[in-house]
Amino acid sequence: MKISKVLGLCVLGSTVLFGANSLVTNAMNSGLKPIPQSKFELLKLIDDAKDPITSQKVELGKKLYFDPRMSKSSLISCNTCHNLGLGGVDGVSAAIGHGWTVNPHHLNSPTVYNAVFFKAQFWDGRSPHLADQAQGPVQAAPEMAAPPKLVEKRITSIPEYVSEFKKAYGDDVKIDFKRITSTIAIFEKTLITPSRFDDFLNGSNEALNKHEKEGLKIFLNKGCASCHTGIALGGTMQPFQIASKYKFINVGDFKGNAESMVKTPTLRNITETAPYFHNGQFWSLKDAVKEMGSIQLGIKISNKDAGKIVTFLKALKGRKPDISYPQLPDSSSTTPHPDAK
Amino acid sequence: MKISKVLGLCVLGSTVLFGANSLVTNAMNSGLKPIPQSKFELLKLIDDAKDPITSQKVELGKKLYFDPRMSKSSLISCNTCHNLGLGGVDGVSAAIGHGWTVNPHHLNSPTVYNAVFFKAQFWDGRSPHLADQAQGPVQAAPEMAAPPKLVEKRITSIPEYVSEFKKAYGDDVKIDFKRITSTIAIFEKTLITPSRFDDFLNGSNEALNKHEKEGLKIFLNKGCASCHTGIALGGTMQPFQIASKYKFINVGDFKGNAESMVKTPTLRNITETAPYFHNGQFWSLKDAVKEMGSIQLGIKISNKDAGKIVTFLKALKGRKPDISYPQLPDSSSTTPHPDAK
Repeated sequence: MKISKVLGLCVLGSTVLFGANSLVTNAMNSGLKPIPQSKFELLKLIDDAKDPITSQKVELGKKLYFDPRMSKSSLISCNTCHNLGLGGVDGVSAAIGHGWTVNPHHLNSPTVYNAVFFKAQFWDGRSPHLADQAQGPVQAAPEMAAPPKLVEKRITSIPEYVSEFKKAYGDDVKIDFKRITSTIAIFEKTLITPSRFDDFLNGSNEALNKHEKEGLKIFLNKGCASCHTGIALGGTMQPFQIASKYKFINVGDFKGNAESMVKTPTLRNITETAPYFHNGQFWSLKDAVKEMGSIQLGIKISNKDAGKIVTFLKALKGRKPDISYPQLPDSSSTTPHPDAK
Repeated sequence: MKISKVLGLCVLGSTVLFGANSLVTNAMNSGLKPIPQSKFELLKLIDDAKDPITSQKVELGKKLYFDPRMSKSSLISCNTCHNLGLGGVDGVSAAIGHGWTVNPHHLNSPTVYNAVFFKAQFWDGRSPHLADQAQGPVQAAPEMAAPPKLVEKRITSIPEYVSEFKKAYGDDVKIDFKRITSTIAIFEKTLITPSRFDDFLNGSNEALNKHEKEGLKIFLNKGCASCHTGIALGGTMQPFQIASKYKFINVGDFKGNAESMVKTPTLRNITETAPYFHNGQFWSLKDAVKEMGSIQLGIKISNKDAGKIVTFLKALKGRKPDISYPQLPDSSSTTPHPDAK
C-alpha cells in the first residue's frame, strides 16, 4: 500500500521519466543538472530575498552594463569584454582594457551568460557573488580603470539614472558603487540560456540526436563531469593539475592559493567562447578537450572521441534572452569628462 | 473661379496649414525641412533602386555594424565610436581606436543617426555616400585598422554570414569589402530619429511649447539655419571661417581643400552628442552656440539668447528606432584570429 503510493507519486513526478532514460540518470548522477523549466524553481535558485529581482532593477542594470561611462575613458562598458552578442565574451586570448593594456596575467574574459550558476566568480574564485565580480573589472587598472568615486560621480550626475535608482530602490536609495554594481549583477542574473541539453535532462528524449547522446556518454565515461558539473557544467574550483605549464601559480589575483585552484569554465555556449582556458591558449575546441583529458584526467582522449564530445558540447548552445539595445540617459554639465590617460 | 479652385486645393493640401503658422513658413523658407511622415515619401528620399533597402539587408547590416570582428583587433565595432545608445557617438573629444590611438587630427566621431540625410560624409565631405563612409573607419589605421582583405576573410569564414549574404543578395553574391560595407550603410539608412520639431513642421502646432518656439525664432533670426539646413539641420559643406583657430587647415583628410570647407554637423539629438565641433573642444552646448555666432555669423549671441536657442535645440531629440541587440554568428576554424598589434 505504502509502496504503490510512492510509485504513484513517482509517476506524477519525474523519477519514472528519468528512470526510463538511463543516459539522463547517468548524467544527473554524475552531477549535471538542467536549468529549471519552471520560472518559480529558477527564481528560487537565483533570487535573493534581501535584494529581489525586479523589472526596474533589471532595466537599470542593463543600461549600466552597456554604459561605457562606467569606465575612466568612457569607452569601455561591461559589454566590451563580455559581449552579449558574442556568447558573453570578447573572443580574444587575453582581455584588453584601458590604454589597450593586455591583462598582465594574460587572463581570458569568462562569459557572463549563466554566471549566476557559478559557485565561484573570478578565475581564482575569490568570491561566490556576481555583485562582487561586477566591482572587479570596473576598478581594475588594465580593464575599466574607474575608481569607485568616479563611477559614483558619473552616475549620480545623470538625472535620469538618479530617477531610475529611486524608482528601483525607493527615494532614500544611496547610489554608491556597491549599489551601482549590484544592480548590474541583477541584470546579469537574467542572462540565462537554456539549451537542447536542458530540454533533454528535463525529459524531452528527442532533444538530443543519437550523435549528441553518444558524445554525452563519452563525456560522462571519460569523467569530464567531475569538474564540469552542476547547472553551469563548470563554475566551481578545481586544482589545475599542471598549472605551472600555463604559468599560472601565484600571479596576480591567484596569489596565496598554493594549490593553484582555478575556476572551471562553464561549457554552456562553448562554441561561442573561444579561445579556451584561463589564458585563451587554445582556439580549437577539440584540441582543448584532448588537452583537458591529458592534464586533468590523466588520460588520452582520441581524436575520434574528442570529436564526439564536441558534437555533444555543441548542443549546449543556449537560447539567448532577447535584449533590446538600451538608449542611455544624457550626461549633464556636471558629469566628469572621459579620461583616456 | 480659377482662384477658388486653387484655394480648394490648398485646403486639401498643407499650404493653408503652413500659411496659418508663420513660424513654420519662416523655418521652411530658411531651408529647414521635416523628416517626412509618410513612409513612401521617406523611402523616396533614402532608397536606391540599384540596391534597395530590404529587411534581410538591414538585419545583416545591423549584425555587421555591431560585430567587432570587422576590426583588426576584433575589439572595435562601428558601434564603438558610433554608439547607438549614446546618440550615435562615443562622447569623447577625439575618436580613440586601434591601439588606443587618438585620432591624429583630433577629429570627433560624428553621429550616425540621420546621416542618411547628409549631403556630405566625413568632416571634409569627400563623399556624399554612406557606403563610402562605412569603408573609411574600418580601414583607417587609428580606427579599426582592418585591411579590406582581412575583413573579407573574416566575414566569408563565418558560414552564417555567407548564408545571410546569399539570402539578401542572391546565391551568386560576391561578398567583398564593398558589399560588406554597403550592407552596413543600408542598416545605417534606417537610423532616423523623428522629433517634436518634425511634428511641428509637419503641422502639429502644439508639438513645440512657447519657449521652444521662441528659441526657434531666435535660431532663425540669427541665421543659424544658413549652415544648419535641410532635413539634417547640417550635413552640408560650409567654409569654416577661422578654421586656423582650430588647427584645421590641410591636415589629413582635409588636405587639398584650400578653403577649409567643413561639414556642418547635424543638430538632431545634439544634447546627446557632446563634446562639440570637429575637434570636440566644447562641452557646453550654450558655449558652442555662442562660439558659432561669433566665428561663423560674426555676431555676438547673448547668454540669454543662446539659452533660448538651446531650449529649441533640445526639441530636436528624436525618437530612436528600437534595436534588438543582435546575436552574432560563430566564428569558424578558418576565421582569422584577432590581432591587437
